[in-house]
This record gives sequence, C-alpha cells and structure tokens, in this order.
Amino acid sequence: MTTSRVLTLAGSLRSGSYNRLLLSAAAQVAPRGLNLSHFDELASVPLFNEDIEARGLPPTVEKLCAAVRAADALLVATREYNQSMPGVLKNAIDWLSRPTAEGVLQGKFVGVIGVTAGQWGTRLAQAALRQVLFATESVIVPGTALYLRDAARLFDARGELRDAAAREALSRYLAEFAAALRASPAHAAGPGAIELAQLQPAG
Amino acid sequence: MTTSRVLTLAGSLRSGSYNRLLLSAAAQVAPRGLNLSHFDELASVPLFNEDIEARGLPPTVEKLCAAVRAADALLVATREYNQSMPGVLKNAIDWLSRPTAEGVLQGKFVGVIGVTAGQWGTRLAQAALRQVLFATESVIVPGTALYLRDAARLFDARGELRDAAAREALSRYLAEFAAALRASPAHAAGPGAIELAQLQPAG
Repeated sequence: MTTSRVLTLAGSLRSGSYNRLLLSAAAQVAPRGLNLSHFDELASVPLFNEDIEARGLPPTVEKLCAAVRAADALLVATREYNQSMPGVLKNAIDWLSRPTAEGVLQGKFVGVIGVTAGQWGTRLAQAALRQVLFATESVIVPGTALYLRDAARLFDARGELRDAAAREALSRYLAEFAAALRASPAHAAGPGAIELAQLQPAG
Repeated sequence: MTTSRVLTLAGSLRSGSYNRLLLSAAAQVAPRGLNLSHFDELASVPLFNEDIEARGLPPTVEKLCAAVRAADALLVATREYNQSMPGVLKNAIDWLSRPTAEGVLQGKFVGVIGVTAGQWGTRLAQAALRQVLFATESVIVPGTALYLRDAARLFDARGELRDAAAREALSRYLAEFAAALRASPAHAAGPGAIELAQLQPAG
C-alpha cells in the first residue's frame, strides 16, 4: 500500500486554535496510507503584493509552495470569520495561485473541514473556500464534508478531541478522503509518473 | 448641504493598482457633498491573530478603525483573486469586525466597486465582499454596482481614467451612492445624533 502525503493547513493563527487541534486529531485517527504533516508558518506569509512578488517569492511563501508541491493532497481546517474564510487563509491561497508558484494548486487534491465554537459549523467559510479552490483548479474531495460546532465541548483541557461522535465523524471523513484520493486519476498516474514512463527507452 | 466623509479602501497593494487609480478618479468626479479620502496603509495591517489582538490592537489597525469610525461611509474598490476578494481586504475586514474594533462596521454605509485587467469585472469578488459585509451588519449601497473590465484600456500612462464611458459610469455610480447615503436612516439621525438630542435638557 502506497502512502499519501497530506499537508494540513489551519485557517486560524491563534496558538490554541480549535482547527489546529482538529488537524492534530486528524493525524491521530487517519487511516493507514495517509501521512499527515502540518504547515505551521502561515503567520509568516506576508500580505500578497504584486510588487513584492516581482522581486521574488518571500522565503515563507517559497517554503509553503514547496510543501504543497511535495504533497499528494491538502487538508484544510478553516474557521469562519464574517460568513467566509479568514483573510489569512485566502491570502496564502492568493500566493499559491500565482504563476510564480508554478501551478502548485492545479489538480491538487484538497479536503476542507472546519470546527467552530459557534453553532453553524463553518458552513459558509467552507462554501467560500470551495468556490476559491474551484478557481484555482484544485480537485475538491467530492461528496463528503465535515462541519463541527460547539468546539469548547468537543476538546478537553489538553486540546484532545474527546467527543466520541466528533472523533468518529472525523475518522469517517478521513476514510472517505483516502478512498477518493486513491481513486483520483491524478493519484493513479500523476504528471510525474507519465513523464517517467515516457522516458523509458522503447523496446 | 452637509458634506459626507467617505473613506476609500483598495483591495490590491500593488503601487500601480488599477483599483487605487479608480478611487483617485472617484475623488475627482465625486458629486458635491461627498468628500473622499483614501486609507493607504492596508499593507501595514498584520495578519489577523487573536493572540495579537489579546495584547491590544496593532497601531495600523487602531488607525484603520479610527478612520472607519470617523467616516460617514466607505467606498471599497476591489480586484478579484480566485473568484473572490483578495485575502488582504478580507484580513482588514476581519480586524474591523472584531469586538475590539467596537462595531465600526455595524450600520456603516458601504459601496463596492471594482476594476480588473480581465474580462469579468470583479463580479465574483464583489459578490463575496457583499456577503461578508452583510455578516458585519454594514449597510450595502442598494441597487447599484460598478463592474469595470479591460483596465489597461481605461487608464492612460499617467494613471488617469481616460475612457469616457467608464468615467461616466463612475460618476453615475457616485451620484447614486450619494443619494442613497443621504436617504439612509443612519445618515439622517446616526447614533451620535440621537445621543446628542437625548443630552439636550428637556423644556
């Protein structure tokens, strides 16, 4: 069984971010074959500015691009601000979508989940993010979603996802994520694989 | 005739930003009674982070809040990134919407316009921004919009809005903006005005 590298991103920068905790829980309950690693430097990604871009990608943006490029898939856990995704997350995607980032989001398999202390489960943030990921020509995990609410009740004082139903829903989401990733054409024969095959001498 | 103070914000940080040029043109063609001034420091607004917020609002955010508070209305010219507003703009709104910003966006009259070098006139960016402004309980200018495309054709080498049809459309938009602002209940008797009236000694 091949292992798929999944880069995780959280939409909130707060050190105790529930969405970061959710991604930690995801790394614990992920099925065999999914290897989750977290990119924890979104706070160092500068505000997108074409004048800065023209002088070359900032180091943290380079690092983010390289991490996305090296990953088979992304898993984004977003909180919701003002019925949309945080500006922090959109800003990172704006950098990743630029020609200077060399298309790292095109065809990239992306899952979206979210947890909130409020009642609505980040539904509008996720909808806004999916629209943006459609624009970046990413492959959005089809047919499955995870909206978690009442975050303060779900995690214990040490930040562990303790709520059994939430833990089960997260496991189920990741199982479906893994199955969809295995079934995706990009995974079966990505551009790299095709290129290698073409480089084999004929006969 | 009273003069209304309109604070303008551009969604793009590029020094030659078409949307900033559009706001300069707006200041030129604004009808009497609208006094436009530009907030040009969004590049210094840090990424929103509740941990930073807990230590107090950063200076540029304080400055932005004060400028919004002092204005009778906002006019936002946004470009479009990935079928939504730039993260830069959403990030500024995330700060402005926080309790620490003391509700500066609630009930604030806001107009949204946009110009793009592409073909679609920032339509999806404006739609996304209006949804966010609904969430912040701002008063969105009703019934009128301005979507400008082919930006490179509209402005001359000195950055002046030269295209006659675009200039006329901008003038018309601002006239409708001014009329709607005059007619808005907030303008007729804002919270400040009511408070002053209540402070008058009776009889």
